[in-house]
Amino acid sequence: MEKKHYFASDNYSGVDSEILKSLERCNFGHADAYGYDSETEKSEKVFSELFGKKVKPFFVFNGTGSNVVALSSVLNRFESVIASEHAHIHQDECGALELISGCKILILPTKNGKISAQQLDSFNHYRGFEHNVQPKVVSISQSTELGTVYSNSEIKELADKAHSLGMYIHVDGARVSNAVVSQNTTFKEMFSDTGVDILSFGGTKNGLLFGEAVVFLNEELSKNILYVRKQSMQLFSKNRFIASQFNEFITKSIWKKNAENSNRMAQYLKEKLKKFDEIETVYSVDSNAVFAKVEPKLIEYLLEYTHFYIWNESESVVRWMCSFDTTKEDIDNFIFKIEEFYKKL
Amino acid sequence: MEKKHYFASDNYSGVDSEILKSLERCNFGHADAYGYDSETEKSEKVFSELFGKKVKPFFVFNGTGSNVVALSSVLNRFESVIASEHAHIHQDECGALELISGCKILILPTKNGKISAQQLDSFNHYRGFEHNVQPKVVSISQSTELGTVYSNSEIKELADKAHSLGMYIHVDGARVSNAVVSQNTTFKEMFSDTGVDILSFGGTKNGLLFGEAVVFLNEELSKNILYVRKQSMQLFSKNRFIASQFNEFITKSIWKKNAENSNRMAQYLKEKLKKFDEIETVYSVDSNAVFAKVEPKLIEYLLEYTHFYIWNESESVVRWMCSFDTTKEDIDNFIFKIEEFYKKL
Amino acid sequence: MEKKHYFASDNYSGVDSEILKSLERCNFGHADAYGYDSETEKSEKVFSELFGKKVKPFFVFNGTGSNVVALSSVLNRFESVIASEHAHIHQDECGALELISGCKILILPTKNGKISAQQLDSFNHYRGFEHNVQPKVVSISQSTELGTVYSNSEIKELADKAHSLGMYIHVDGARVSNAVVSQNTTFKEMFSDTGVDILSFGGTKNGLLFGEAVVFLNEELSKNILYVRKQSMQLFSKNRFIASQFNEFITKSIWKKNAENSNRMAQYLKEKLKKFDEIETVYSVDSNAVFAKVEPKLIEYLLEYTHFYIWNESESVVRWMCSFDTTKEDIDNFIFKIEEFYKKL
Amino acid sequence: MEKKHYFASDNYSGVDSEILKSLERCNFGHADAYGYDSETEKSEKVFSELFGKKVKPFFVFNGTGSNVVALSSVLNRFESVIASEHAHIHQDECGALELISGCKILILPTKNGKISAQQLDSFNHYRGFEHNVQPKVVSISQSTELGTVYSNSEIKELADKAHSLGMYIHVDGARVSNAVVSQNTTFKEMFSDTGVDILSFGGTKNGLLFGEAVVFLNEELSKNILYVRKQSMQLFSKNRFIASQFNEFITKSIWKKNAENSNRMAQYLKEKLKKFDEIETVYSVDSNAVFAKVEPKLIEYLLEYTHFYIWNESESVVRWMCSFDTTKEDIDNFIFKIEEFYKKL
Repeated sequence: MEKKHYFASDNYSGVDSEILKSLERCNFGHADAYGYDSETEKSEKVFSELFGKKVKPFFVFNGTGSNVVALSSVLNRFESVIASEHAHIHQDECGALELISGCKILILPTKNGKISAQQLDSFNHYRGFEHNVQPKVVSISQSTELGTVYSNSEIKELADKAHSLGMYIHVDGARVSNAVVSQNTTFKEMFSDTGVDILSFGGTKNGLLFGEAVVFLNEELSKNILYVRKQSMQLFSKNRFIASQFNEFITKSIWKKNAENSNRMAQYLKEKLKKFDEIETVYSVDSNAVFAKVEPKLIEYLLEYTHFYIWNESESVVRWMCSFDTTKEDIDNFIFKIEEFYKKL
Repeated sequence: MEKKHYFASDNYSGVDSEILKSLERCNFGHADAYGYDSETEKSEKVFSELFGKKVKPFFVFNGTGSNVVALSSVLNRFESVIASEHAHIHQDECGALELISGCKILILPTKNGKISAQQLDSFNHYRGFEHNVQPKVVSISQSTELGTVYSNSEIKELADKAHSLGMYIHVDGARVSNAVVSQNTTFKEMFSDTGVDILSFGGTKNGLLFGEAVVFLNEELSKNILYVRKQSMQLFSKNRFIASQFNEFITKSIWKKNAENSNRMAQYLKEKLKKFDEIETVYSVDSNAVFAKVEPKLIEYLLEYTHFYIWNESESVVRWMCSFDTTKEDIDNFIFKIEEFYKKL
Repeated sequence: MEKKHYFASDNYSGVDSEILKSLERCNFGHADAYGYDSETEKSEKVFSELFGKKVKPFFVFNGTGSNVVALSSVLNRFESVIASEHAHIHQDECGALELISGCKILILPTKNGKISAQQLDSFNHYRGFEHNVQPKVVSISQSTELGTVYSNSEIKELADKAHSLGMYIHVDGARVSNAVVSQNTTFKEMFSDTGVDILSFGGTKNGLLFGEAVVFLNEELSKNILYVRKQSMQLFSKNRFIASQFNEFITKSIWKKNAENSNRMAQYLKEKLKKFDEIETVYSVDSNAVFAKVEPKLIEYLLEYTHFYIWNESESVVRWMCSFDTTKEDIDNFIFKIEEFYKKL
Repeated sequence: MEKKHYFASDNYSGVDSEILKSLERCNFGHADAYGYDSETEKSEKVFSELFGKKVKPFFVFNGTGSNVVALSSVLNRFESVIASEHAHIHQDECGALELISGCKILILPTKNGKISAQQLDSFNHYRGFEHNVQPKVVSISQSTELGTVYSNSEIKELADKAHSLGMYIHVDGARVSNAVVSQNTTFKEMFSDTGVDILSFGGTKNGLLFGEAVVFLNEELSKNILYVRKQSMQLFSKNRFIASQFNEFITKSIWKKNAENSNRMAQYLKEKLKKFDEIETVYSVDSNAVFAKVEPKLIEYLLEYTHFYIWNESESVVRWMCSFDTTKEDIDNFIFKIEEFYKKL
């Protein structure tokens, strides 16, 4: 069987081999369940070092769980979340936040998936009026669903504005490692120093078998998290096996190594695409995704060869996602198929 | 470091080594996410063979998720679940079902964790009266939270009664393998032939790294499951890695081998305890748990040596749970500590 | 058409004529909607006087709404309410609290509908354990669903115990006027002086057309009530028409006059029943309800003549409820029917 | 005290005097509670006549309740509602639908508050994809929140399209009488003949004391309504007092008389405004609301004289709402104040 790498999503990939080994190391006798084990204890130190301040990670199973647990920890039922129209919590989680928290998501239009501090002002007229849900959290995705990345100063500006309006700021970091690498910065600079309150730190899309971490940078917001996580069905009994993956991921800088590869591959793909006048890259390639406007016939041709998503059918825009295990050869082969298509015309 | 086996819970254990290996075998290139891969496809065949009829398993992360997804798939908001007062869904899931489904759990007193068909009649007077939630599902645990096991005929009687009253029957099978082994029967005979509608098939407590399966024996009840699972945050992107564990678990009869060991160890422990007049076993040891009434001083003494749960503090009842990796030596050492305690008196 | 008074429920009755007139008086031109009118403003003074302290009533439509709004104002999703097994919120509201708040109701057995302070201790072992919902509010009914009434000192004991365990105390006062009259006390003594946190003050069952008031005696708990009431669909646009009823109800002591009548009629009925050896009154007749154990044939006979509820079919217990407009003649006629039944035998 | 009529909202008004009298007529002895009385029974006939087909109205307390009960009767938790960005259910109900049903509202931009059949097509790509909530109901407001009114043929086109896409159509008819009068049509032609599935029939904003009716034109959708209404806290014990208002409202054509007045007053106001070049009417005045773009200074000046809402602060648009009791004199006086303002300049 031939090993295949697609351009569909970074969760089509398998598990980083070092991460998989960490599971074996951890598989030794009995350990206290539900996060009262030594690996989980160790993770507190590991995360605190990464963020340059004392933080405690709370592990959950998946990205949707991470976002919902983080947000519903701080939302009363009549409060709301402000997010981009492209936000994963709005578009891709089958209404999980609404069901679990009872809260509304108020959406903002964006050109490139990034919302601006100025846009938040418009929500202030809802404040204090009982007929309206009360805006409580601004949730941004970093990197965004369009592959773009907020700069540290953009995040700080958003956090400052959110705080000035009595709101918190949450980051959906399903692809957070790619964002940190993209900005050539650190987790401390991007999240601790900018004033972010809660980060959903993604692992699955960057080489982990499974597992995400809800990180409260604003510690007082974590007071209900244990109950919220359990009630949200996101508490893992054998929690050590998520903790060990993250401990490995961080202490051995696997997050960095893997994100560097997927980002680099996206740049490589973008460069290679330049030779085709017919193909237009539509958003800034800041991380590991390349969005391109291509003709429907080419989409059809390429989908017979590999997997990827049509992002916007009416505008004929596709998403090509690079992964931690994507290789130059994968891309060269892909480019070859495009050339083949145009030659045949 | 010495490897330790406690008597706390079967989720204090690690992962069966064959199961862990199945993850490596499965870690090969990219695969379609969210359950559209070949391992998940294969699982349909594997489960259908086990149950002697065409069934489709829907994988989820954990036990609470499995119960809530199974139940809320068939419950409208004003409907209710009937369960034992000891039911995990009632006692140990932090109100997950109520939050996610909006539904009430109506509880029944039991002597040994098992509810009887006769007890269901009392709920019939709620039927059709708009001031009352409408009973829709009877949920039993097999094996029960008290280590007892329903016979196949008891399940059939419950299912028949539930159906005659317009209700479905769900089984919380977090420890279902132990129940099947206990009754020296098969999954087909215990669940397909008795008329059970939905089974939450547990893996984590019997040697899996993580993962449970919601199995619809009554196929028409599954029509909403994909949305319910996603919205309940229980859809795993790299689903192949749960499917592969279950495929290994079932095709290599690991479920049986492991449950046989934990059940056998519970019997061995129960036998060994007979020599202590001061210790009284309080429920029938049908599966892998031994409940015993012991004096508080002994509890204190033993807790310094190993981990286990005090089940009922006021009645001084403890739970000693055996696991797939519990050994005779573990028990002999434990018995030795009890002897030591009584010698010192 | 003959005017009929049944013994079914105090909400089978119509509207006190003075109350109905208050609607006309209030029906004058336009007024600010949603409770920003002068009648609603006046009600703050009226209620504060009644309770001997500054309180603000928040009007809602009905009893279920009043309980749910009061409770969900202070409950986080993973918290729970402790109540009697007979509590209206548990038995008769079709799971409204669970749906709206996501919270569980933990029930206590009672002999006469009243829970005791001692019973609350058992919930303390749930505290701080993330697998359990966290007890937050003790909800009692005054008068209870069985027609019994807590003494002021019993309420104080419950409130003290609840507070000592980190909980609040809520009173479902659908029939609160009957309770105050029964104890020959005042609203101040029964609720302000005993430490009750929130009272659902019922009007509909004591002569109002419609309307209940959520009264926060613990003022800081009211900080979310405006949003909770609106989101719970219990905010009335023409709020002045509930306020005016309550203002009339309280300032003219209609609550007292009406409750005195219904309580007196229940006593009168109870006395009259003594002559029948075959009829046994089963709970203390503290307020306006008489529960009696009577033979099934008599139930059948009486139901052809008037309406009332069979409370417990298996024990052949019925509930005969007196209302603000029940007359001695109504009862004499009813007793006559019972005599008739026994004569025919 | 001078009687005042504002231009704030039609729920600032009081009660039509004939309606108020109907309460007195109905206040006679006891009647079966919760809608099992003769007035409620009569309403079935009254509504069926109005709609030209057998329908059963289910009475609720208020507009938000009416919309939420209607919609959550047919929505599973993972389904969604499509509505205009201006929809009351989206903007003005404090997230009630999301909390009660768990469902999302997907919004559409509109120029005049009306959505078009063509706009519905875009939601079809969500169908069958488990990551997205599943569109189930199209909810339109008639008349709309911007005072515009759908023609019967526009409604039919929307209903046909919704049905062809597997969806139902619900009408938020808080001001439905104004819409019927506006189109010089009948309830039968506007709702029965066009294929509307559920109508929230408003009474409070057109002269009732309180009360709305959920009318299922598609009868099979009503199978859960009794439970949904009770659990949603919208079941009135003394239901006869809503039924009697509606019976009077319909049989005596009060709905028509009142809506004709408020619509006529809006036209009168619109005509009178024409003389001011500085004032621009911004939406078609189809019913009883006039929206106008006026300078901020004038807004300030008029708000000292009467009440009305600033609809859009940034665009300086106000809403002037006429009511069943608005008089020509009210408008003449208002126009006089505007003239006064411009004279003073």
